[in-house]
Amino acid sequence: MTSLKRTTEKNLMLLSGRAHPELAQEVADCLGITLVPTTAYEFANSEIYVRFEESVRGSDAFVIQSHTAPINEWIMEHLIMVDALKRASAKRITVVLPFYGYARQDKKHRGREPISARLMADLFKAAGADRLICVDLHTAQIQGFFDGPVDHLQAMPILTDYVHDKYGDQPMTIVSPDAGRIKVAEQWSKRLDGAPLAFIHKTRDISRPNQSVANRLVGEVEGRLAILVDDMIDSGGTICQAADAIMEAGATGVVIAATHAIFSDPATQRLRANVAQEVIVTNTLPLPPEHQFDKLTVLSIAPLISQAIHEVFDDGSVTRLFDNGE
Amino acid sequence: MTSLKRTTEKNLMLLSGRAHPELAQEVADCLGITLVPTTAYEFANSEIYVRFEESVRGSDAFVIQSHTAPINEWIMEHLIMVDALKRASAKRITVVLPFYGYARQDKKHRGREPISARLMADLFKAAGADRLICVDLHTAQIQGFFDGPVDHLQAMPILTDYVHDKYGDQPMTIVSPDAGRIKVAEQWSKRLDGAPLAFIHKTRDISRPNQSVANRLVGEVEGRLAILVDDMIDSGGTICQAADAIMEAGATGVVIAATHAIFSDPATQRLRANVAQEVIVTNTLPLPPEHQFDKLTVLSIAPLISQAIHEVFDDGSVTRLFDNGE
Amino acid sequence: MTSLKRTTEKNLMLLSGRAHPELAQEVADCLGITLVPTTAYEFANSEIYVRFEESVRGSDAFVIQSHTAPINEWIMEHLIMVDALKRASAKRITVVLPFYGYARQDKKHRGREPISARLMADLFKAAGADRLICVDLHTAQIQGFFDGPVDHLQAMPILTDYVHDKYGDQPMTIVSPDAGRIKVAEQWSKRLDGAPLAFIHKTRDISRPNQSVANRLVGEVEGRLAILVDDMIDSGGTICQAADAIMEAGATGVVIAATHAIFSDPATQRLRANVAQEVIVTNTLPLPPEHQFDKLTVLSIAPLISQAIHEVFDDGSVTRLFDNGE
Amino acid sequence: MTSLKRTTEKNLMLLSGRAHPELAQEVADCLGITLVPTTAYEFANSEIYVRFEESVRGSDAFVIQSHTAPINEWIMEHLIMVDALKRASAKRITVVLPFYGYARQDKKHRGREPISARLMADLFKAAGADRLICVDLHTAQIQGFFDGPVDHLQAMPILTDYVHDKYGDQPMTIVSPDAGRIKVAEQWSKRLDGAPLAFIHKTRDISRPNQSVANRLVGEVEGRLAILVDDMIDSGGTICQAADAIMEAGATGVVIAATHAIFSDPATQRLRANVAQEVIVTNTLPLPPEHQFDKLTVLSIAPLISQAIHEVFDDGSVTRLFDNGE
Amino acid sequence: MTSLKRTTEKNLMLLSGRAHPELAQEVADCLGITLVPTTAYEFANSEIYVRFEESVRGSDAFVIQSHTAPINEWIMEHLIMVDALKRASAKRITVVLPFYGYARQDKKHRGREPISARLMADLFKAAGADRLICVDLHTAQIQGFFDGPVDHLQAMPILTDYVHDKYGDQPMTIVSPDAGRIKVAEQWSKRLDGAPLAFIHKTRDISRPNQSVANRLVGEVEGRLAILVDDMIDSGGTICQAADAIMEAGATGVVIAATHAIFSDPATQRLRANVAQEVIVTNTLPLPPEHQFDKLTVLSIAPLISQAIHEVFDDGSVTRLFDNGE
Amino acid sequence: MTSLKRTTEKNLMLLSGRAHPELAQEVADCLGITLVPTTAYEFANSEIYVRFEESVRGSDAFVIQSHTAPINEWIMEHLIMVDALKRASAKRITVVLPFYGYARQDKKHRGREPISARLMADLFKAAGADRLICVDLHTAQIQGFFDGPVDHLQAMPILTDYVHDKYGDQPMTIVSPDAGRIKVAEQWSKRLDGAPLAFIHKTRDISRPNQSVANRLVGEVEGRLAILVDDMIDSGGTICQAADAIMEAGATGVVIAATHAIFSDPATQRLRANVAQEVIVTNTLPLPPEHQFDKLTVLSIAPLISQAIHEVFDDGSVTRLFDNGE
Repeated sequence: MTSLKRTTEKNLMLLSGRAHPELAQEVADCLGITLVPTTAYEFANSEIYVRFEESVRGSDAFVIQSHTAPINEWIMEHLIMVDALKRASAKRITVVLPFYGYARQDKKHRGREPISARLMADLFKAAGADRLICVDLHTAQIQGFFDGPVDHLQAMPILTDYVHDKYGDQPMTIVSPDAGRIKVAEQWSKRLDGAPLAFIHKTRDISRPNQSVANRLVGEVEGRLAILVDDMIDSGGTICQAADAIMEAGATGVVIAATHAIFSDPATQRLRANVAQEVIVTNTLPLPPEHQFDKLTVLSIAPLISQAIHEVFDDGSVTRLFDNGE
Repeated sequence: MTSLKRTTEKNLMLLSGRAHPELAQEVADCLGITLVPTTAYEFANSEIYVRFEESVRGSDAFVIQSHTAPINEWIMEHLIMVDALKRASAKRITVVLPFYGYARQDKKHRGREPISARLMADLFKAAGADRLICVDLHTAQIQGFFDGPVDHLQAMPILTDYVHDKYGDQPMTIVSPDAGRIKVAEQWSKRLDGAPLAFIHKTRDISRPNQSVANRLVGEVEGRLAILVDDMIDSGGTICQAADAIMEAGATGVVIAATHAIFSDPATQRLRANVAQEVIVTNTLPLPPEHQFDKLTVLSIAPLISQAIHEVFDDGSVTRLFDNGE
Repeated sequence: MTSLKRTTEKNLMLLSGRAHPELAQEVADCLGITLVPTTAYEFANSEIYVRFEESVRGSDAFVIQSHTAPINEWIMEHLIMVDALKRASAKRITVVLPFYGYARQDKKHRGREPISARLMADLFKAAGADRLICVDLHTAQIQGFFDGPVDHLQAMPILTDYVHDKYGDQPMTIVSPDAGRIKVAEQWSKRLDGAPLAFIHKTRDISRPNQSVANRLVGEVEGRLAILVDDMIDSGGTICQAADAIMEAGATGVVIAATHAIFSDPATQRLRANVAQEVIVTNTLPLPPEHQFDKLTVLSIAPLISQAIHEVFDDGSVTRLFDNGE
Repeated sequence: MTSLKRTTEKNLMLLSGRAHPELAQEVADCLGITLVPTTAYEFANSEIYVRFEESVRGSDAFVIQSHTAPINEWIMEHLIMVDALKRASAKRITVVLPFYGYARQDKKHRGREPISARLMADLFKAAGADRLICVDLHTAQIQGFFDGPVDHLQAMPILTDYVHDKYGDQPMTIVSPDAGRIKVAEQWSKRLDGAPLAFIHKTRDISRPNQSVANRLVGEVEGRLAILVDDMIDSGGTICQAADAIMEAGATGVVIAATHAIFSDPATQRLRANVAQEVIVTNTLPLPPEHQFDKLTVLSIAPLISQAIHEVFDDGSVTRLFDNGE
Repeated sequence: MTSLKRTTEKNLMLLSGRAHPELAQEVADCLGITLVPTTAYEFANSEIYVRFEESVRGSDAFVIQSHTAPINEWIMEHLIMVDALKRASAKRITVVLPFYGYARQDKKHRGREPISARLMADLFKAAGADRLICVDLHTAQIQGFFDGPVDHLQAMPILTDYVHDKYGDQPMTIVSPDAGRIKVAEQWSKRLDGAPLAFIHKTRDISRPNQSVANRLVGEVEGRLAILVDDMIDSGGTICQAADAIMEAGATGVVIAATHAIFSDPATQRLRANVAQEVIVTNTLPLPPEHQFDKLTVLSIAPLISQAIHEVFDDGSVTRLFDNGE
Repeated sequence: MTSLKRTTEKNLMLLSGRAHPELAQEVADCLGITLVPTTAYEFANSEIYVRFEESVRGSDAFVIQSHTAPINEWIMEHLIMVDALKRASAKRITVVLPFYGYARQDKKHRGREPISARLMADLFKAAGADRLICVDLHTAQIQGFFDGPVDHLQAMPILTDYVHDKYGDQPMTIVSPDAGRIKVAEQWSKRLDGAPLAFIHKTRDISRPNQSVANRLVGEVEGRLAILVDDMIDSGGTICQAADAIMEAGATGVVIAATHAIFSDPATQRLRANVAQEVIVTNTLPLPPEHQFDKLTVLSIAPLISQAIHEVFDDGSVTRLFDNGE
């Protein structure tokens, strides 16, 4: 006999860093599997150590980490896990990024800046990643930064379905908090029966020389419920000012909706105090109790991610998970 | 003596494909040099042959080609020239792209599409390109597709200066022909004293079921001169409809401005017949006589490109050539 | 349960560009499958758009395109299809090239030329190709240009079998139309019972100063049927002159045989008018009706290609498909 | 004129991250230049932003960062700076690592661990580093992890010269705190007139079952001054126990010497309380006032690093800076 | 039907170069398969030719070669076999290196030296190797030289088990022949109930000026059996001198043990004549009859290697094969 | 001052392996420099050690080695020298290959063979080579195997000039020893006033069943001096049989000419005993006294190589050194 033969099996394994274990656990539950037991800690000098407690040889490995603060810690842990998978002979390594760190640094605004979003793609490639799964990237072009397949999931249907069910009987306007994000608002409009669009134009206010920026609302919101949408809420300044400008322009109310709840200080205080009646986000990033408040609604992203992982593993089509109907 | 020593010289050489020789010549004139004599032709079966008639060994080579129709011809010629430069030992190869082909395919709109803009960056890298010089990319993120330095030049100041000089005394609104391009309009607004913004929202018109799309103008143009801006004009359908919608909304007039005049059929007829009073473009792409018409103004991009080449050669700062003042 | 398990399946899918759909269909028929439905068209400015209408995730994808004129169009479409397959997570991408474009530019004849045949290999690698299947490369060394496995199929047995059956009872000489192609003629000779060889030596004719080149026949054809062989027929000039020279040297007849029928103008006219009694080619390239004529015989390459695809998919041995019996 | 010519100049520029600005400033002073002014800060969500305030185009850039805690922050900043230099067209990028983070994870001790030291080399390569300058790597093999030139500087002569001057008149034994580091001790011995060697053998103490490890001193220290040497001091546990074991074995005194003063808690307390009479380190890592104490001596590494940078820039020989005399 | 489907099989094939066929055969026997028949020979000018006589398409190929003298011959043959496997479409190529050539050149001892151990890793990568299996590398850091998974097997348990069985009733000291190898001795100590350690310190002997080096034994061997251990024995000079020094220090006997028996001349003579009572090695390298002698014991490495190949093929855990119990 | 400035110098350094020191010395003499002093030897187990005795930092390094038997030794030494140059920070590394080893294995003749000529190109690339200089490659396509510039020098003019001077007054026929090499003969013909061509057709001789191969001369040699040409002479069998067949066909004499004198046994005996009146070669390979004989003429290749090195260093044009006048 010249050779040994075996029927090939494939073997889905899910691994998680320490940034957002609740989400990883939820995804594992949806898949009906357990997370690979993993040892991870810092040495005294803050270097990270990682080791998997089970063989991952030949596995189809999915390694999930949300890039929340302290973001560089968690990115480095993510990279180290990928390196360990590569050296432990995982067959294919898919990096799952519910929130892709540094996504906003996706171009040089001025000379001598980095393009950190591309750098992240290169670092994961260098570490050994074969493919990425992302959710609502800041710009869709980031898909093109990675040299390999990228599945770009859209959380927006989760948000629009919720809004449609709760507020669908009122006249709505979709509002973008600045000119650059109006493309997202347009997709919302499509999913909500062609609701009208508006946006905030930040400009120098000539009449009030001491105040350098005015928020001019462009579009119609009077007598309508404004759905103020963005991909992420960071410190919340822009979106809260937008909500104020909308109410000044005569809207009947404001609902804020975004996929990624970064909630850097003082986002929680700002949102709690704001005129908006509801703030809707998903759990792509961890939301500790101190970042939660009464009018905050958190929808789970885990079913979407687990379904994508399942389809990738089964070689099914992920397209319907991100098809925006165009 | 163990070694031979020489003081190093560097040597700027400019080469051009056959897509847009007038622009290449203009750039050479601005630099005060001549183009490297190059033989290029098709074989009977349409394969392209290229040979440089002068040594390029050790040179700092800049190879310019505008990706106009037939675009695949000219891209392939461009790639072949880069390969020939690499094998002829050019020291550094800078690819100059006044118009970057396939720039609009910069993301997957749906599953199972290519990201052709990234593919182009990869092809030039594979052929041997060390760096790129581009003008007004469709999205700035394309810079991040190339694994190396990219100088992204802005033609917009050339256009805004012209508009400011000619129309600066009238009240203006900057209008984007669709939601996705409003970021460009916002930059125009900044350069034109914070002029107000507006955009066209394409939506299904519920009142008229037979007509699937309505062009809703969002923003104020009544009694103002509308400057309708985009990065490129292809077949001209969207922009001409936008001009009509603007006039219907009560504007005093429409001026169309864009960097790249692709002018695919029937752009010329459409623009000539359109309500717009002037159409302003640059010569990043060739404009044969049959594509020219009375109210068309063509501004030259050659001084901008030659200055960038000079700065790259001299290790000067290109930042001021693309700094958008942010 | 720590992981999900599945028995792995593999899944052959065949995709085709638009250059030569008849051949692709014939190959699919031989395999007993249908081609993956694919949308492909040009935008107004001649950029190509491609999208697959079925999931190709995890597939063993074979993407076939013949590089016929307009060759740069079809090569670019081929590259874009490979990019789309890569980003759609095909597991393995095999590029099938019945005719490999730019194969004749396989070395620098003079300084400052490209090596376009190597460039093509690099471009397909950059786009994401894992392996190539080719037919009768201009020089076998091109296999070494690609960084990965290349299956190099030989169409010659199809041609020699046909010639043997039809003309095997006559004394034959195998003639190469120039010195550089005599290696191909030698392989013909081996397959046809060691038939004698001859070739045309193009040289300056000293006796006739006004005419720079003479076609000197080296070898014996008198009283024999000359089988004039080459790998491809482009515009037909060389091969038709060779046929004339052979007849002048006293051959009883000339039969022309080649794998690739490029048939650039005015090949068809030349061949029709030529002394040769039969012209035998394969369908590696499309032959529209206007390129066909009475004495032209077209043999199908589809069985050879489909068999190779089958063997590659099944991990069988392709060797016997290209083994030249040495 | 076909081309522009210039005599080439080269241009050394020094850039620093924020981890250890005092050392960078000292190196700049030694070189007689100023650091390139650089903006660097964290966004609210802890992402790092970097921009150089001066053109670095064409420069021979040296970018220095000591990998101290919080180590992942500073490594990421370092990588982002390299990316920014690459995109700003620096001609050559040399990464200067007075302390190389993750150097101790230079092999898999057990299955399913990363080799983080190799990962760091790959990350810097992916970001765009052309070469590295390091000081006293944990193992010299780490040089081989980077795909490019590495200048490995030795701080040991600085330390041994100091020890020789101060203690050269006493009989000395060089002691390694464990078996794995005895190679370093051997180099010390060579530079200190062949002083005898000893080391601590950690072993299970069979006589005292409850205490799992005993520190057995192997070698002679009785009546001699022990120079206890290592490449780095982290939390100080091992080295302080070693010092105790040495004194128990009858040494006249203990002097501790190491290149890298990581001084993780509770290193400072331990060392202050320890029997050792002097602790000698260099400033490869920052030593804030709270980590300093009476018997601590800090020698400057800046002259060594600046000299290496100078030699690299001038294409001189760095060999004598790390030649260990073998 | 759009596609053909098959259940995937995997197929282990074992190939061997000509350096150490006995070991390859033994490994094949352990696996219960036969070696792939392979033609290999030198041309007249000493170029090597290799061809496999069976299809290896789609196989999980393991290619074994021991890097014995003439070492460059066998490394080149090994590389050529990997290239042939790549071009013949093996699915995965694992290079099995019972002895890794050039492992001792794992760092630059002085400037302007190669790091040949890294170069070997790069050459195998360039040829097409996906992964490595090695035995007792000179330094474990060499694992990090290869860009991919490395299974690092430990032969030491085979040796220690033998020693324990035969000499376990005597008081033992584990001795390292020089300071640099004491880490190996420490692992022996762990496996042999914490036996004490000692090592030879080579130093200049001040009392005898004409003799430059003295072998000072550091540690206790008096009245004990010394187990003198190293990873390899090359020409045997160091280890034989060490054995002499040990006996002079009063040991009751010396047993030499090492994994790799390079046995360059005059190792065999030296060892035969030496005071050591037994020399224990494995068969990672061929030991022709003229290199064998009475007190030499050769233990087989084949079961360890075949077990590792089996586990890699079955995606089992190799960890227990190299876990050193830490 | 932000930066240090220097005018850049470049610095040609020539290094040589041990395969053919006479040629390297001759090249150095032509350049007017000395070879960089280099230590190179084998360890006891036949591993090669190399170290340069002078700084090569920043140099434009040319490293020359002729791949003569034992060919794997010298190739490995060549690779190790390139690695050492890379790690010692040479600025550019040009590999000079008077004879390129494994050049004849430039394609797969049958399945499951390596393409060793491509492998060599990849190995040199992996080691760090930036460019190659070669002489008379077996097939010109090998240029395309290396991913970078290749200068392909032609020794043929040296040979043809010699033949023209000595035999130009006689009627000549250029003869190729087999069909595959007739392209070389054609170039000879061009340089020698269009002399007629002939070649040997090896075929099964039907009339003599016991002798499987007959050498049939195709073309005219009667009454003419035959110049029998090839790129290399290995064991000399083919070329000596060709000479015999030529004389049988009535030639007045035979002169053998080839660039590369491999002269494997029994080439020298065969050539000495052969009917040829003169054998002309160059010194691309070493010719020890025992390989020399009366009618052997050796022409020096050193002036050609040194001129090419000079042009590469000076960024001059090498084209005229290999332009074959086409």
